[in-house]
Amino acid sequence: MTNPAPASPADKSNSAAPGPILRTRFTERFGLTTPVALAPMALASGGALTAACANAGALGLLGGAYGDLAWTQREHRLALQGATEPGRPRMGVGFITWKLDESASALDWVLDLPMDERPRTIMLSFGDPSPYARRIQQAGCALICQIQRLEQLPRVLGAGADVVAAQGGEAGGHGMDAMHGRATFTLVPELADALAAQSPQTLLLAAGGVADGRGLAAALMLGADGVLVGSRLWAAQESLAAKGAVDMALATNGDGTARTGIFDILRRKNWPAPYDFRAIRNALHRSLEGDVAGLRAQPEEARAAYDAGVAAGDFSRAHATVGEGVGLIKDVAPAAELVERMTRQAQALLSGRVGR
Amino acid sequence: MTNPAPASPADKSNSAAPGPILRTRFTERFGLTTPVALAPMALASGGALTAACANAGALGLLGGAYGDLAWTQREHRLALQGATEPGRPRMGVGFITWKLDESASALDWVLDLPMDERPRTIMLSFGDPSPYARRIQQAGCALICQIQRLEQLPRVLGAGADVVAAQGGEAGGHGMDAMHGRATFTLVPELADALAAQSPQTLLLAAGGVADGRGLAAALMLGADGVLVGSRLWAAQESLAAKGAVDMALATNGDGTARTGIFDILRRKNWPAPYDFRAIRNALHRSLEGDVAGLRAQPEEARAAYDAGVAAGDFSRAHATVGEGVGLIKDVAPAAELVERMTRQAQALLSGRVGR
Repeated sequence: MTNPAPASPADKSNSAAPGPILRTRFTERFGLTTPVALAPMALASGGALTAACANAGALGLLGGAYGDLAWTQREHRLALQGATEPGRPRMGVGFITWKLDESASALDWVLDLPMDERPRTIMLSFGDPSPYARRIQQAGCALICQIQRLEQLPRVLGAGADVVAAQGGEAGGHGMDAMHGRATFTLVPELADALAAQSPQTLLLAAGGVADGRGLAAALMLGADGVLVGSRLWAAQESLAAKGAVDMALATNGDGTARTGIFDILRRKNWPAPYDFRAIRNALHRSLEGDVAGLRAQPEEARAAYDAGVAAGDFSRAHATVGEGVGLIKDVAPAAELVERMTRQAQALLSGRVGR
Repeated sequence: MTNPAPASPADKSNSAAPGPILRTRFTERFGLTTPVALAPMALASGGALTAACANAGALGLLGGAYGDLAWTQREHRLALQGATEPGRPRMGVGFITWKLDESASALDWVLDLPMDERPRTIMLSFGDPSPYARRIQQAGCALICQIQRLEQLPRVLGAGADVVAAQGGEAGGHGMDAMHGRATFTLVPELADALAAQSPQTLLLAAGGVADGRGLAAALMLGADGVLVGSRLWAAQESLAAKGAVDMALATNGDGTARTGIFDILRRKNWPAPYDFRAIRNALHRSLEGDVAGLRAQPEEARAAYDAGVAAGDFSRAHATVGEGVGLIKDVAPAAELVERMTRQAQALLSGRVGR
């Protein structure tokens, strides 16, 4: 990081958005006022949340996820409509890389947009970014690649990643399974060392467990240039997350999530190994933990229970996708307020003005 | 934390040890010059390492572990002999709580020592500290209780813990299994919030993944008053860790460990659920990962291979106990130098003097 000290009030660059300013190499590169990026969460990071984060001086990343073209088109337009800053908005789109291998129509669509509507960045997670990297960068979009292990770094550097997002197993949603996963606390400094030696111009974001200004400040101390925030913004007012899921999350502490393959089996998702999924360990999940192999062999009854839960909006059976940071989430608030709180708290900690 | 800013050079209190000074509530309470404690690692944190850490201004915690009386007596005497500071040394002893339930003779022995030889603190991990808490505190020893989940906090506060150590799953050795474990990055701030609300005088240490000054600074940002350092000091010159294990650790990055029950099965350890063990994922471990239930049912052949590895000092079969922080360990050095490096790097980061 490049001295994440608060800028002086007299410094007006990058200050079109109101609120505190916290500078790092990441904010400089992307024209942000705080080193925070919205994680591109499937079915949560829609247009309204993406625009709200961008308007707050953060990087908004639309949850392109499985690459549904109609969803991406609709939500991207909403994001553009919601953006209040002049010029190309501080936005990007995230995709699941191995799904692009089946269909890249949503990626193709965003890369063909007029330049002033085109995302500033594309984030690729879970797979080989090489087939898409050149086209993305030729379209004038920075390439963010999310990885979960040190051994994945050569591939994304080979693809020309401008930013590496280091995802610890704390994160909600998909990530590496327990045997292969790393935690944010050790993955970030180890990747920072590797980047310093191999590719010092490549930026590093910490992803997984960052839910307040303490996490932001800690990530900068560990060597990150910024953070990717999922669960905390999943519970923002503008999120598309279901209210029932958010209500359950507000009542759940950080002990209450687990990382398993259970919800992918229930949702009929064909995720490749060794990825699995962190969500709230609800009643249906707990009832299935004892015999995951049996569930995989005979999933019909459990799938019926899950489907009924989804239809009824009953999150004791349907999944609520949050990470371990859920224990730090006590309210629903506008994304701008959440970004500002996080930034101010990090500023205060980094300047030694407050204790615990 | 209480403004972890470096003290001015003119400030002489707590400055008998040479080297940098970094103050928090933890250093004030225990008379340290840096908020670092040696993790009481079984068969690694012996008397020499404990004394070296204490002499460097950190808290030395002897690895009493399974409570072997002869080992504890011998290593505690070595620690006392090695201590260079006048007065009661900055030392404690750590025990595995559920093993004390079988025999507490080593605990009894240290608590009956003359006051100037008695540990300043006893650390209890993995079990219910209540049966031992009162006796420990009546002996004039502070009680450090290590926990892995938020839900364990009421029990250790009820026992009167003076310090809570929050152990993330990154840590080497025993900890919570993947279904129940938490990561340092989210467990620390969540416990900091809980302590601020319920017991603000109780101190908080971060344990798991702290291997350099970045980790120390990050832990303070997350709300800890200090850190418990395992793997990095396991590879100190004074450690009792086997040279072959340390050589393997130096060649292993943070991707190379795993948390499973395999080594406990091989070592015939009767650890209660839901605890398991993180170590280097060596060749024998990898060969057994596919069928842990089968290993548990028929362990004989694998145990023979493990025993032969131990006898031969072959760490492709014997276990090398380190956590995910192993990827940040590049050398073996005296403990004093490691503590000083960690403290100086944290100071520099906290004062904004250096970037990544």
